[in-house]
Amino acid sequence: MLVVSLMRLGDQEERLRKQFPDVAFEFYKHPSVLPREVQEKMDILISYHAEVDEEFIESSPNLKWIAWYATGVNTLPFKLINQKGIQVTNAKGVHAQQLSEFLFAFILDDYKQLKEVYKEQEQQIYNSKRTTQSIENQVILFLGTGVIAKRAAQVAKVFGMKTIGINTSGRKVDQFDQTFLLRERATIYQEADIIVNLLPETKETYHLLTSEDFKAMNAHTLFINIGRGTITKEDTIVSALKNKWIRKAYLDVFEKEPLNDNSELYDIDNVYLTSHITGNGENNKSKATDIFINNLKSFLNKKPLIENLVDIDKGY
Amino acid sequence: MLVVSLMRLGDQEERLRKQFPDVAFEFYKHPSVLPREVQEKMDILISYHAEVDEEFIESSPNLKWIAWYATGVNTLPFKLINQKGIQVTNAKGVHAQQLSEFLFAFILDDYKQLKEVYKEQEQQIYNSKRTTQSIENQVILFLGTGVIAKRAAQVAKVFGMKTIGINTSGRKVDQFDQTFLLRERATIYQEADIIVNLLPETKETYHLLTSEDFKAMNAHTLFINIGRGTITKEDTIVSALKNKWIRKAYLDVFEKEPLNDNSELYDIDNVYLTSHITGNGENNKSKATDIFINNLKSFLNKKPLIENLVDIDKGY
Repeated sequence: MLVVSLMRLGDQEERLRKQFPDVAFEFYKHPSVLPREVQEKMDILISYHAEVDEEFIESSPNLKWIAWYATGVNTLPFKLINQKGIQVTNAKGVHAQQLSEFLFAFILDDYKQLKEVYKEQEQQIYNSKRTTQSIENQVILFLGTGVIAKRAAQVAKVFGMKTIGINTSGRKVDQFDQTFLLRERATIYQEADIIVNLLPETKETYHLLTSEDFKAMNAHTLFINIGRGTITKEDTIVSALKNKWIRKAYLDVFEKEPLNDNSELYDIDNVYLTSHITGNGENNKSKATDIFINNLKSFLNKKPLIENLVDIDKGY
Repeated sequence: MLVVSLMRLGDQEERLRKQFPDVAFEFYKHPSVLPREVQEKMDILISYHAEVDEEFIESSPNLKWIAWYATGVNTLPFKLINQKGIQVTNAKGVHAQQLSEFLFAFILDDYKQLKEVYKEQEQQIYNSKRTTQSIENQVILFLGTGVIAKRAAQVAKVFGMKTIGINTSGRKVDQFDQTFLLRERATIYQEADIIVNLLPETKETYHLLTSEDFKAMNAHTLFINIGRGTITKEDTIVSALKNKWIRKAYLDVFEKEPLNDNSELYDIDNVYLTSHITGNGENNKSKATDIFINNLKSFLNKKPLIENLVDIDKGY
C-alpha cells in the first residue's frame, strides 16, 4: 500500500509512519517533483493542488482515494474521477475555527469602529463620546449552512445575534433560527444586517450573486466573503460597493486569485481585502491528518471511508 | 415623590412618566443647572457624575436613593452616604455586552493580525501564506469575575478558550474553568496567554498591579484593560510595555482620564489606546432604566431595592 503526499507534512509524517508501519509513505515538496514511477504505483494521494487535473489522474492508474487537505474541491476533474471509481475525502471542518475567528474579527472591526478609533490614537485625540453599535440582535445571514457556517452561527448566537441560513434544500440546521432555500434568497436579504458567503463553488453557485442580488440587500448591509470568490463577478461586487448598494465588504476570496494588481477593488474605500488567508492555521495539517488517519484505518480494513467523503455528484 | 436626573434620558423620560404617573420627574442636562430648591426636595437621584461629592450630598437633605447609571461607583463619597443611610444602585450588567464585544474585537484584531493585513492591502500585496494563531485553547485570565467578566468568559468558552477567573474570595463562578484568590495571582500569570482587567476600583485594587506583577507574566502576554485605569500606575504599564515584560496591551482606561496629551503611552509601539469607550452603547440608557424601573416599583411599595444594590462597605 503506497500513500503519496504532494506536500511535506512536518511532524505529521513521523506520526503516520509510526501509526501505520505496514504502509509506505512518500512525501514530496511539490507536485512537480513527483517521480513518474511513484505516481504510477500510488494507491492513495494526499494533495490540495491544482496540478491534480485530468492528465494527472490518467497518469495515476492505481489511484483509489484522494485525501484532499483543503475543503474546496472545485479544481478536481470530477467526471474522470467518477469514471475511474476514485473516492475523494476533504478537510471540511478543519478550517471552521479559523474562519469563525476571522469572521468575528471582521464583524467586530467594523461594528466597534477599530480603524476610526486607532486613527484617533495616531492623532492623540481622546474622544470618550464615541458610541458603537452592538451586534446583539443584529441579523446575520449565512449563504451556506455547512460545518463552517454552523460553527460561526454558534458564536453569533452567543453574541445574541439572530441567525438565518440559506441552503439548497431549505432544510433546518442546528444553530440557525431560520433556514430558506437558495432560490428564496432575494426575499430574505432585507432581513439581514450582515451577509456572509460560505457556499462551495459548484455549477449552481458559480456567479450566483448578480447585481440584482446586491441591489436587493439593505443599503446598510455588511457583506463578508470567506467562501469562494466565484460566487460573484468581480465587476459586480465592485459596482455594489461603488454604488453603495451595500455599505461595506470584507473580502478574503476573489473571482481570480491571486487578486490582480490592477483590480479596481484596490481603489475602493469601503472594502477590506485579505489574501485568502482566513482558513490558514498552524494546526490545519494536524487536524486534516486526524481525518486522514480515521479514514485510513477504515480503508486498510476494506471498509468504507467514514469521514468527510465528498459527494462526487454534488461536488462538495 | 421627586425623582431628579442629572442627565437627559431621551425617550426614557416619556416611558418613566407614563409608567409612574404619581411620581414627579425632573430631567436636567447637567449637574450644574440643577436648581438648589429642587436638590433640597429630591428623594431619588439619577446620575453618574463626579459632581455628586460630599458637598452635593450635604445639600440633598431629602435624598434616599442614588440610582447610578454607570457601573463604577468609585467617585461617590461612600462614608457620608453610609452615614446618611442613602442607598445606591448601579448599572452593573448594562455594559457587559458592549464590553464583551470590544474585548473580542481587541483579541481578534491582535490574533488575526488585522493591522498587518491591512497594511498589505494599502501596498497592494497579496500574501496568501500568512498564518495566524487560533484563539482556541488559549488561556484567558480575568482579573474580576463579575457580570461583565462572566459574559466575556461565556463568549471565550464558545471560541474554545480556557478561562481562569481571579476574585477576592477565590469562589467558583460559572463560565470559569478555574478561579483563584486575588493574592494567588502571581502564581497563575504563567498559565495565561491573555490577561483582562475587569476589577472595580476599590481600596484593595487601587494600584494593585506593580512591576512585579507584569514581570511575573509571560513575555507573550496580551494585556487588556477595560476595567479601571487605577489598577496600575501609568509609569508601571509604560515600563511593562517598553521593557517587553509583556508583548502588547489594549487599554481603554487610564490612571488619569482624559489621557494626557504628553502621556508616554502615545509614544509606544506595542499599545493600542481607546478613550474609555468600550462600555458606551446606544441602548445603555434604556437598559439602565429597565433596572431603575424594577427598583422604583419596589421602592414605591416600601420594599427593598432588588436589583444591583451596591454594597457600600465593599464599594461595588
